[in-house]
Amino acid sequence: MEKEKLLYEGKAKRVYETEDPGLLIVSYKDDATAFNGLKKGSISGKGVINNHMSNLLMKRLEKRGIPTHFVKELSSRDTLVKRVSIVPLEVIVRNRAAGSFSQRYGVEEGFLFQSPTLEFSYKNDALGDPLLNTSHALALGLATGVELETIKRYSLAVNQELKAIWEKCGITLVDFKLEFGRDPQGSVLLADEISPDTCRLWDTSTGEKLDKDRFRRDLGKVEEAYEEVMKRLETEYSE
Amino acid sequence: MEKEKLLYEGKAKRVYETEDPGLLIVSYKDDATAFNGLKKGSISGKGVINNHMSNLLMKRLEKRGIPTHFVKELSSRDTLVKRVSIVPLEVIVRNRAAGSFSQRYGVEEGFLFQSPTLEFSYKNDALGDPLLNTSHALALGLATGVELETIKRYSLAVNQELKAIWEKCGITLVDFKLEFGRDPQGSVLLADEISPDTCRLWDTSTGEKLDKDRFRRDLGKVEEAYEEVMKRLETEYSE
Repeated sequence: MEKEKLLYEGKAKRVYETEDPGLLIVSYKDDATAFNGLKKGSISGKGVINNHMSNLLMKRLEKRGIPTHFVKELSSRDTLVKRVSIVPLEVIVRNRAAGSFSQRYGVEEGFLFQSPTLEFSYKNDALGDPLLNTSHALALGLATGVELETIKRYSLAVNQELKAIWEKCGITLVDFKLEFGRDPQGSVLLADEISPDTCRLWDTSTGEKLDKDRFRRDLGKVEEAYEEVMKRLETEYSE
Repeated sequence: MEKEKLLYEGKAKRVYETEDPGLLIVSYKDDATAFNGLKKGSISGKGVINNHMSNLLMKRLEKRGIPTHFVKELSSRDTLVKRVSIVPLEVIVRNRAAGSFSQRYGVEEGFLFQSPTLEFSYKNDALGDPLLNTSHALALGLATGVELETIKRYSLAVNQELKAIWEKCGITLVDFKLEFGRDPQGSVLLADEISPDTCRLWDTSTGEKLDKDRFRRDLGKVEEAYEEVMKRLETEYSE
């Protein structure tokens, strides 16, 4: 399967059409952005790591009954995925306070919730991806009530599975962002990626941040953090 | 019943203890603030109107099975209410887009929703009363799951009743803010006030704003708007 027309170029990925109208090729870049594009940079080798990590995790989620867009890893940076129409919502599941949650609600980073929180934000760069709730998403016609319930159920199931995976690697899953799409039959599939770009991952023993916050907050050793996380995951979950 | 110790002075009201530890006196001021206190002013006669209007509406809500803190109107500005511990959430119900909803989500003011939206914000001036959802409120320990369900149910019932009342007055209820409290037995009661300070009220024929947006946006004829709304309500619902 070959890349044909470039369909879309995002902050961290390019998406190409293929000869099959139902399949796309996602190509992971090393580019990194933060704060809604205000900060730009590059993390050497990130594309290779995120491609492989996301595929490994999506395969495990599929086995647990969560349908994903993943089809086949084609090369170190390229993956074949099902073509979906993206639901314009970012889903953020949090096990502990961090980042925007801590800022918005004045809660110290690391505060452990009794049960995970789940929030939607409206995927809209011009508006700054604002937080919204289920009734807002319905009022704006972003998804149906049934779709929103499915997305919530899948997202909490993804959290259970990812928490367990990262725990085996000595890593605390603090929070993560998911995106979902609709296939031509209208079924909801997990799309986008799961990587240190989209998850907060803290070393459980030392508390060290092993994710994109190293880039966002200029903490240094960014590449090393991505490599460390990938190494631990492959050690525990090599196929 | 006499005012004793001043318990709390808010932006638009003073609250006094009474000889009965279970009862407070709320005294409505003419002071008006907006934008989290950045804009300050006065609306002559507002306290008298809001006191009387809120009491009239709370009495009607009680008849519809929604428990409120209202006990008795004592004077033109003073009302006896049950002492409650305020749940630190503002509840905003919206029938149409306006204000912060329109700004946050890029939707024109007046856009009619198929069903009302309901949102919570965290009552915290230092944080700017940030939006939050049910899972956030639970994670922050602001209310129990049962309380949140009760608050949502009451708020939507209040919307049904207020919409009908204002419709009879030729006024469109665009949105409104409610606050709830817990009584010593742990029951949830509607508290605070219902007035043009806390509701967006538009003349149904002309679209003219008849609420605090006239003050917020320097539209002029602020006092006249409050008087007009009160006059229409008293014409339809005089006791």
